[in-house]
Parts: sequence; C-alpha cells; structure tokens
Amino acid sequence: MKLSAHEIANLVQGEWVGDSQKVVTGVAPFEQATSSDIAFVAQSKYVQEIPSSSAGILLLQKGVAVSGRTAVLVENPQFAFLKILQICAQEKKQVKIGVHATAVVSSDVQIGKNVSIGAYTVIESGTTIGDGTVIGPLCSIGKDVTLGSACQLYAHVTIREEVVLQDRVILHAGCVIGADGFGYLTVNQTHHKIPQVGTVLIEDDVEIGANVTVDRATMGKTVIGRGSKIDNLVQIAHNVQVGAGCIIAAQTGVAGSSKLGVGVTLAGQVGIGDHVIVGDKTIVAAGSGVVDDLPAGSVMFGYLARPIQKEKKIQVLLGKLPALFSEFRKVKKKLQIDESEPKDD
Amino acid sequence: MKLSAHEIANLVQGEWVGDSQKVVTGVAPFEQATSSDIAFVAQSKYVQEIPSSSAGILLLQKGVAVSGRTAVLVENPQFAFLKILQICAQEKKQVKIGVHATAVVSSDVQIGKNVSIGAYTVIESGTTIGDGTVIGPLCSIGKDVTLGSACQLYAHVTIREEVVLQDRVILHAGCVIGADGFGYLTVNQTHHKIPQVGTVLIEDDVEIGANVTVDRATMGKTVIGRGSKIDNLVQIAHNVQVGAGCIIAAQTGVAGSSKLGVGVTLAGQVGIGDHVIVGDKTIVAAGSGVVDDLPAGSVMFGYLARPIQKEKKIQVLLGKLPALFSEFRKVKKKLQIDESEPKDD
Amino acid sequence: MKLSAHEIANLVQGEWVGDSQKVVTGVAPFEQATSSDIAFVAQSKYVQEIPSSSAGILLLQKGVAVSGRTAVLVENPQFAFLKILQICAQEKKQVKIGVHATAVVSSDVQIGKNVSIGAYTVIESGTTIGDGTVIGPLCSIGKDVTLGSACQLYAHVTIREEVVLQDRVILHAGCVIGADGFGYLTVNQTHHKIPQVGTVLIEDDVEIGANVTVDRATMGKTVIGRGSKIDNLVQIAHNVQVGAGCIIAAQTGVAGSSKLGVGVTLAGQVGIGDHVIVGDKTIVAAGSGVVDDLPAGSVMFGYLARPIQKEKKIQVLLGKLPALFSEFRKVKKKLQIDESEPKDD
Repeated sequence: MKLSAHEIANLVQGEWVGDSQKVVTGVAPFEQATSSDIAFVAQSKYVQEIPSSSAGILLLQKGVAVSGRTAVLVENPQFAFLKILQICAQEKKQVKIGVHATAVVSSDVQIGKNVSIGAYTVIESGTTIGDGTVIGPLCSIGKDVTLGSACQLYAHVTIREEVVLQDRVILHAGCVIGADGFGYLTVNQTHHKIPQVGTVLIEDDVEIGANVTVDRATMGKTVIGRGSKIDNLVQIAHNVQVGAGCIIAAQTGVAGSSKLGVGVTLAGQVGIGDHVIVGDKTIVAAGSGVVDDLPAGSVMFGYLARPIQKEKKIQVLLGKLPALFSEFRKVKKKLQIDESEPKDD
Repeated sequence: MKLSAHEIANLVQGEWVGDSQKVVTGVAPFEQATSSDIAFVAQSKYVQEIPSSSAGILLLQKGVAVSGRTAVLVENPQFAFLKILQICAQEKKQVKIGVHATAVVSSDVQIGKNVSIGAYTVIESGTTIGDGTVIGPLCSIGKDVTLGSACQLYAHVTIREEVVLQDRVILHAGCVIGADGFGYLTVNQTHHKIPQVGTVLIEDDVEIGANVTVDRATMGKTVIGRGSKIDNLVQIAHNVQVGAGCIIAAQTGVAGSSKLGVGVTLAGQVGIGDHVIVGDKTIVAAGSGVVDDLPAGSVMFGYLARPIQKEKKIQVLLGKLPALFSEFRKVKKKLQIDESEPKDD
Repeated sequence: MKLSAHEIANLVQGEWVGDSQKVVTGVAPFEQATSSDIAFVAQSKYVQEIPSSSAGILLLQKGVAVSGRTAVLVENPQFAFLKILQICAQEKKQVKIGVHATAVVSSDVQIGKNVSIGAYTVIESGTTIGDGTVIGPLCSIGKDVTLGSACQLYAHVTIREEVVLQDRVILHAGCVIGADGFGYLTVNQTHHKIPQVGTVLIEDDVEIGANVTVDRATMGKTVIGRGSKIDNLVQIAHNVQVGAGCIIAAQTGVAGSSKLGVGVTLAGQVGIGDHVIVGDKTIVAAGSGVVDDLPAGSVMFGYLARPIQKEKKIQVLLGKLPALFSEFRKVKKKLQIDESEPKDD
C-alpha cells in the first residue's frame, strides 16, 4: 500500500488538509501509528489527543480543526478507515484462479468462473461451485453440496453432504458445517442414534469463525440467516434457526431447535437452551444462560439470564449478602428470636 | 426412498390402515410434512392435531383411531420412525470400499475387509483397522493405533499414536483424539512440560462430535466408556474416565482425572473440575459447574452446582433480593437500628 | 525404555538403595505401578503408603527411609520423574527428517536443517522454517509465515499468512493461528467486515492445545508471551496480549484487546471480557467471568468474578437464602409488618 493524502481523500470522498503529497504505507491504531501510517479518530472526545499521535495522516471528522498536521476530513472517519483497510487487505490477498493439480474433484462437480480450489482439497460428486468462490487447501466438501458465488473457504473446512451456502459466505479454518445433530432415542439405557437426514442452509453474506460447528437438522434445515456473523468455537445445534443480521460471539452455544430472531446479539460464552425463541434485536450479555423465550428487544444478563438492569442490581446485592446476614443476626437478637445463622435446607 | 404404507408396516412390524399402496418418498416433522412424507406422532396428547398434518402416511400408536388417513400403527411410533430414518440415511450413504489412491498408508498397516480409506488420509506404521471401518478424507492416524470394526471417521479427524478405538465408534469431523494432556511442573516460574506418555481408549458404540478434544493420559489411559455419546466442542482432559452410556452435550469440559459413572448426563457448557467423582445416573443441568464429588442419582444445577430443587428455589429468591434488601431497611427503621444499606465487606 | 536403578540414579543425580540392577521398562502412577514400572512419591505424607505400591523402583525424597524396596533418592522426586518421562517420550518419538514427497512446499520457502514436513502439508510462498522444526501431516501454512527453531506442529494445524512463531513452540492438532478477528462496523443494521490486517506473534516455548483459535489483530499483533501454555479449545481474540508464563486452561475465552500480565493463571471455561487488563500473577478460578481490570496478584472466582474469599462466603450464603427468607417472614410477623414474601421488582 502506498497512498498520498490526496489519493486517500479521493478514495473516501473527503477533503485533505496539510500536505496533499504526504504518503503512507500502512495502517495502525491511533496511539501506535508512525509517520508512515494512516490512523483515524472516531470520536470528537479523542480529538484533544491528536498531538500525541505520530500518524502520518489522520482521518478525522469534518469540522475538526487541526493545525500543522496532514489529515483527511470525512463524515464518518471509522467508515472511511474501513475502506483503507479493505485496500490494504485486498493487496495481501492474491488468489490463484484455477484448480490446484492435487485437488481431488469429482468429475461431475460444476465449477463456475474464476474459481480457486486449493491443494489437497477433496470435493465429492454432485457438488456445484459458484463464480469467484475461493476454496483453501485441505478442505473436504461432501456430495451434492451447493456453494454460491464469491464465497471464501479457508483451510481445513469440512462441509458435509447436501449443505447449501448462498453467496459471499466466509468460512474460517477448521469449521465443520453439517455434522450430525446430537440426537438419540434411549431405550433400556441404550442410546440409539437418530439418523440426521436434514441439512444446513447458510444464507448470503454470513461469516463463520474458526473451528465453529453447525450441525445438520434431524429433518429439514438448520439455517444461518443472511448477513449473520459467527465468531470462533461457536456451536449451533441441529434445527436451529438463526435470523438475519445476528452477531454471535466466541464459544457461544445454541441448543437444538432454538430460534433467534433478526438482529440478535449473543456475546461470548452465552448458552441458549433448546427450543428457545429469542425475539428480534435481543442482546444477551457474555456468559449468560437463557432457557426461556425472550420477547423482541430484550437485554439480558446472568446465569440464568434476567433483564440486565435487574441482574446488575442483584450482582451488587450479592456483594452485600455477608453484611445482610450479619445485620439480620442483630435484628433477631433485638427481637429475641433464635439467634443462630439461617441454615441450609 | 420410496416406500408404501404396506412396505412400511412390514418394516416396522405394524399394521396399516387406509390406503396400503400410498407411497412416501421422504421423512419430515409432523407439522412440516407434505403428502409425500411420512411423519410420526409420539404421544397421544398430539393425536387431536392429526387433522392439521398433511403427512402422506402417519406413524401412530396402536389404539389411536384415525379416519380418512393412511397410517401405520405400532407399539412405539418414535422407535418405528427411527427405522425409517435409518433406511433414509442408509440410502444417502454409499461408501466406496477400498483405499483411495492418494491415501498415504504405511506398508505395515493391517487393513480388515471392506474398509474404506478416503483421499489424502495419512496412516502411520503399526496401525490396525478392523473390518468395515470407514475413514473419511484428510484424516491423520498416528503410529500403533488400533481401530475396531465398523467404525466411522469423518474428514479431518486426528488420532494420535497408540490410541485404541473399539467397534462401531463414530468420530465426527475435526475431532482430536489423544493430544497431549495439559500438565506442567512449575519450577521457579518456568512451566516444564510433563510428557504425556499414556493413551486413550474409546470403547464400543461411542460417538464423538465435531471438533471435540479427548486428551491422552499422562500415564495409563483416558477412557470413554461403551455406548457414551459426546456432542461437539467438548473437552475431555487427561486421565478422565467416562463410564458407559453417558451423554455429554456440547461445549462441556471435564477436567483432569475426573471420573463419570455409568449413565451420567452432562448438559451443554457444563464444567466438571479435576479429580471429581460423579456417581452413576447423575444429571447436571446446562451451564453448571461441579467441583465436589456427587453421589449416584444426583440431579444438579447451578454455578456452583447444587441439588436442582434447591438451586431453582435460590434462582427465584435471587429475583426477590432487591425487595428483601428494601424491606430489611424498613425492619431496621422500625427497630431503630442503623438504617444504612448493608455494605460490601 | 529399559533402565536399572543404577542407571536411573545416574540420570537424575540421585542415590539408589536396594537392588541397583533392578530394571524397569515403564512408568506409572504410584497406585497403579507394577514391578516393571518406576513410580514417584511426591510428598512425605504419602510415604506411609509405600508398602501398598507394587512399583519396581520408587523415586523418593532424600531422607525417606525404605527397607526391602529398591528406590532412588533425590531432592525433588517429581522433577526427577519428569526426566524419566522425557526419556520415555523421546523413545516414542522417532521423527523422519526431510520433506515428505507429497508435501506442497512453495519453491521459495526457506527450510532450516533437520526439518521434518509431513505428508500433504501445504506451505505457501515466502515462509521460513527454523532448524529442527517438525511439521505434522495435513498442515496448512500460509504466505510469509515465520516458524522458529525446534517447533512442533501436529496434524491439521492452520497458520495463516504472516504469523510469527519463535522457537520451541508446540501447536497441537487442529489449532488455527491467525484467523480473522471478529470485527464489524454496523451501519443501518448491516455488519460490514473490518479487514483484519494485523498478525499474531507466538513467543518462545509457548504450547497451544488442540482446536485452539488465536485470531490475528485488526492492526498490529495478537501476542502470546514467552513460555505461556494454552489448553484445548481456548479462544484468544484479536489484539489480545498474553504475558509471559501464563497458564490458560481449556475452553477459556479472552475477548478482544484484553491484556494478561506475566504469570496469570486462568482455569477452565473462564471468560475475560474485552479491553480488560489482568495484573501479573492473577489467578481466576474455573467458570469465572471477568469484566473489570484486575490488580496484580488478584485471586478471583465467580460469575461475575469477585475476590475468592468473598465469593466463597457468598456461595455459602446463597445456600442459606431460603432459610433467610423464611426467617425474615417471622421477623416481619413479630413486627407486624406486611407478612407477604418480598416480590420481584
């Protein structure tokens, strides 16, 4: 990357101030940037710290006054910076179009235009791959899978039979899409496996993190809705329906047949029980456990999860429990009630 | 799949009513089934909803009266449906017997009859593979491993040296069996690795989910008992002993040297501390943390886990804590005790 | 392994007593050892149990008196036993030096001396591999990666572009180093991916467990400090800084930009929120959730985490909550306050 303030201003539809010929070759956080980096200041409250940054070029909000610095002024510095990051990332990503000589691709696989298939990737019969899709090395793609256009699969991805990915889906390394759901019929203490004959549908613009597992449905489909983003090591069980635009942070688990609405946010290490319905735009704080349905717009916290304001109050009061018990003893003494400590029952 | 009511009745040893020549080609949940699907009604309480289902054929309990529908009547509809699912699954699974040309199999590996080894799978020397075992593509199987008969390993499975699988074991994609246990001897703040020279034994009929990790013992064996079923992303630490017939749901972790009895159920995201003994048939609810030994038949819930009825009561009372603190202030006022709120100590 | 008491005494710089020619061929825990095993007794409190062990040779602390047994006496029996385990492990590990014929290694990869690269491993251009590094089969190593000397990568490891490993790093099977961090800019309910153009630095002597994920930084570096040890299925998010000598047990997650000091211990299933600073030598108990900065030397427990002594007290009092509520009703009765149960608010 090598961009001048003038070029950057053009790219992000902003205005430069200072030295229009000033060139940067990298991106960096505000506080770590050197004179060859561009950095951004998201909020006006950080503007006073501008003198402390060594960034060669600053991306600032229109209206911010700087003197003696080279800057590019835009409506939304963070969004403009995203464009710079995209250019930076694009340059690093030089994909070789074509099927690597070592890939084992069944003869009936339909391969679109400008597809890249990495070394030692194995693709079984009946599968279709859309235009511009990039498949990393060492992936395993089962029978009758459908991959849309412009998808990106990193190394070691497993996609089991019949799974469908729509367009622009990103699957990070090691994720497993379409493994059998966890279902048994227990008769006389023997667990009989319930064959999982359903599948998985991953809609447009979904991104799924490293080593995530999304199980196939017992019957029907497990669905990850359009534009949802899933972080590393998440578990999505069979028959789960994730709505559009959800954010699911690392190590969260959603148990069987649960349904997330549109725009739901689950923070890290959340657990959603089975057959739970989570309303649109609900937010669940990290580490929470949800076992009951939640209406749209809920903001929950705790194990078990409660409305966040209630749980925050309870968390404070838990810290005062020792004092409460001790004062309660005094009360009982004054009332000449048995003074012993309350006991477990 | 293409089965008539008559054929289905024969398969599940039931009786057909309605049109014996009615044919179905798929399976579906009761409420989603179309006229070309078979569906089942597990419990009599759902019988009144039969008219709302479009299923072509219904699997019902003997004694249930239906008019104008084609049905097959059996003692246990769910169990009968399992047989239909098995037929359905069987048809999808057409395994090519033989060793794929690209598999790297050490010359001294003993391969049973009707074994399938997928593309790019690597099997090291001294390993034995039982009859009918199916190994997916891109697996890594170390030295001196023993795989029993009729096992199924999906893609990207790693089995380290000396691990033993008995018969009919299923390992889902990405699971790692026999990685080093997590053990260090810390001397002067340096953590010295304790070599993990033990191994892992997976007994008959165990199923292990995607991206699960089962560590090898420091010395001796980590054991997963006969017929136990483990869901995705579970961690089983070194020297753990899982008894027969256990159910371990997703993202649960069992720490070093702990011992689960027979028929233990651990729901999702449970944590079992190290050196804990969990008695037979114990059930631990989702998200719970267990650090003390549990007698047989315990039913536990909470972090830390308590008997479930106790914890449920506590969960209700936690919701009333704010009210309790507020009423306690009134009591103190009435008694003319210091009215301030109890403090953290 | 085949070692006499005399040879063992030499190896661990100890003194033998009993039969110097007594030979053992294996290692075992004290209580499971047979006459062909060596076992150790770590603490003097177990000395009285020596007669119950069948171990052929015992490693004991200097000063312990044994009669009629063959033993080797040393200052630190556990540390001496570590040396025996290392010999035992060494013998099992016979690495073939060289690049396997099936490995796809870009022509410009710089390979040190005595390097081993396993079957079907794929290494992209610009990568450097230090002397004595062993890479298992089926690994994927991206462009411009730096691997130090004497590293060990097991099967199915993914290392993305530009990641740096220093020396003697161990990566267990299935771990993914350098996947994209989880970052989006949400504009009008659409989540725009923030390209993650940073990288990961893994310092000397780090060990990382199976199926762990360590994400690359948005900009700059995610760092795992020298000598830190990470257990299976851990998530380290983008821009996290793990100090030297940390211990992170299984299924723990550290969210974005958090910083662990030196010698921090996180037990299993811990969650560290984003942008949290954890002071040196802090210990966090299993299952805890940390959202606030912690000073050095903290010992924390709970969700949310509190100082461990406080949380232990609270855990006891939680068990007494039902009794407290019931006694509180009596108090109110005596004071003729409304006797109803406190209500949720």
